Amino acid sequence: MAMFEDSVTRTELKSLGEFKLIDHITEDFTLNNKSSVYGVGDDCAVLSYPDKKVLVSTDLLVEGVHFDMVYTPLMHLGYKAAVVNFSDVYAMNGRPKQITVGIAVSNRFSVEAVKEIYAGIKQACKNYHVDMVGGDTTSSISGLFISITVIGEVDENNIVYRNGAQNNDLICVSGNLGAAYMGMLVLEREKETWKGNPNMQPDLAGNEYVLQRFLRPEARFDIVEILAAKDVIPTSMIDISDGLASELHHICKQSKKGCNIYEDKLPVDPATILAAEDFNINPITAAMNGGEDYELLFTIKQSDYEKIKSIPQISIIGHITDNEGILSLITKDNVTIDIKAQGWDSFTE
Amino acid sequence: MAMFEDSVTRTELKSLGEFKLIDHITEDFTLNNKSSVYGVGDDCAVLSYPDKKVLVSTDLLVEGVHFDMVYTPLMHLGYKAAVVNFSDVYAMNGRPKQITVGIAVSNRFSVEAVKEIYAGIKQACKNYHVDMVGGDTTSSISGLFISITVIGEVDENNIVYRNGAQNNDLICVSGNLGAAYMGMLVLEREKETWKGNPNMQPDLAGNEYVLQRFLRPEARFDIVEILAAKDVIPTSMIDISDGLASELHHICKQSKKGCNIYEDKLPVDPATILAAEDFNINPITAAMNGGEDYELLFTIKQSDYEKIKSIPQISIIGHITDNEGILSLITKDNVTIDIKAQGWDSFTE
Repeated sequence: MAMFEDSVTRTELKSLGEFKLIDHITEDFTLNNKSSVYGVGDDCAVLSYPDKKVLVSTDLLVEGVHFDMVYTPLMHLGYKAAVVNFSDVYAMNGRPKQITVGIAVSNRFSVEAVKEIYAGIKQACKNYHVDMVGGDTTSSISGLFISITVIGEVDENNIVYRNGAQNNDLICVSGNLGAAYMGMLVLEREKETWKGNPNMQPDLAGNEYVLQRFLRPEARFDIVEILAAKDVIPTSMIDISDGLASELHHICKQSKKGCNIYEDKLPVDPATILAAEDFNINPITAAMNGGEDYELLFTIKQSDYEKIKSIPQISIIGHITDNEGILSLITKDNVTIDIKAQGWDSFTE
Repeated sequence: MAMFEDSVTRTELKSLGEFKLIDHITEDFTLNNKSSVYGVGDDCAVLSYPDKKVLVSTDLLVEGVHFDMVYTPLMHLGYKAAVVNFSDVYAMNGRPKQITVGIAVSNRFSVEAVKEIYAGIKQACKNYHVDMVGGDTTSSISGLFISITVIGEVDENNIVYRNGAQNNDLICVSGNLGAAYMGMLVLEREKETWKGNPNMQPDLAGNEYVLQRFLRPEARFDIVEILAAKDVIPTSMIDISDGLASELHHICKQSKKGCNIYEDKLPVDPATILAAEDFNINPITAAMNGGEDYELLFTIKQSDYEKIKSIPQISIIGHITDNEGILSLITKDNVTIDIKAQGWDSFTE
């Protein structure tokens, strides 16, 4: 049962079997990137990266831990599973080129449901010019597991790690923060209402933006392109999956630095502020600790300020300091608060 | 509970949290391959393959589907999860160089249990000269899931696909077949006994070889080295994960050919024959349909026969024919039997 469920034909996975299911899924995937030599259908995919460094990242998405089937449309789930991996490649200043997809599903899911997930993955691949080159589809005793590995490319001289931030570097963030977290809270609230009365349609009007940010996030390929066009190579970069506070800790720890962040510089969308008011939450809390925004957090040299300052998609929110391990938020009232890493942890929440 | 369980200290995953667990796991992994530029600790690993083609493959192992915790020691499980991926790279005539590891565990598992799995993966990486460069460790609602992606290299001219078999090519197989399947049957039998009396120690004497083949298989790196030394490039190759019959179907289907296989040429170890007699099973059935042997099945040109014939690790078991889709087993009594693809299917078994 799910909040958004439609009535569809149901074909049992058992009736099709593994090989035929894989044939179904892969029949309309094509290879478009020069680096994709051979895709699905052999023991391995074959790739070619003679002139670039190769980037690799793997993420797991687990039902009941990373997503709730009650309010997650399967096509959005597939889209998001792919996009969050692409985001890891952009966070190295690279471009994603291939993915492999491992999916384990229980027989609670139908063939149509599995195809919905792959349709979302396919849409993400199309939008971001990525080829699906392999994977594994198998059954599970219970629950849905998605494991995606992304392969990308970057010029050796353009690689951006987390550990390169220097004293006085400007701290920048793309887009706006906290929206995905508010989207999740709206869905959790509607789930509670729906559990009381499953015939009631969820009331999501006015929250479209924050819902979209949570259910179907996009990765910031545009930022990587803009930085390249402006000839700016960040000194450090990370994508915001666990929340700004947690990611600032990663950058500062690996760069052996500290930072000052200014509350009045934090970009928060009006829709996020409205939703936060509705829940009686400080929008800054959502921005600092919410997570799942998939914006890019990066640092640049002061000398690159002129190139960056008038780009609407980028906000300068503070600067790096030599006070190793001291991460401060300076509020609108000029009070200094310690930034705690309240990143989401699947083992402790 | 498990047949082989030892009493050990138990640290709850919750008490450590995700970041500390990852620190624990990754602290003693080092990078040894030239192609491994940067490993664990950033959004992506960075690899370098200027002169080679890159091979990529992903496999999922799911508790209750691919392994049974009752009789699977965790260190062996980690070892096997890595090795079966390496096997996919050898099956392309390549060499594995890096892996990423995704593990989802329920809180039924302790920190020590997760470290056992990684210890097995680490041992496999050491034995096969592979670097672990990244991954994801997260919780699950129930069960253990392991997703491994392997990255390997191969010279462009040496890549071997499944689709290159030609008429009259000789069909070769490494090592021997059916042992892993018999090992599984022995463990299933002991599990039933143990369920009746959990204080009874399993009686596995005399079956050490078939048990090792099932619980802790090795991948045939030696075959790839031998073929290179003899200057033989197979015309097609695949590793035997689902059983000889199923893999022959893959080779023949993708090469648009047929084959004749001779029963008296099939390599079966004496220990496999003994175990099969014990279970009143025809060892040829185990060899044809057993699976999980991780031997290499490949075809070579007739003109390479002289180079291959006296290599003890390789058996010539038949030849390719132009009868597309006709796969025949010729028995010792000269009876011709259709080879059916009885590969294991997680959705239908």
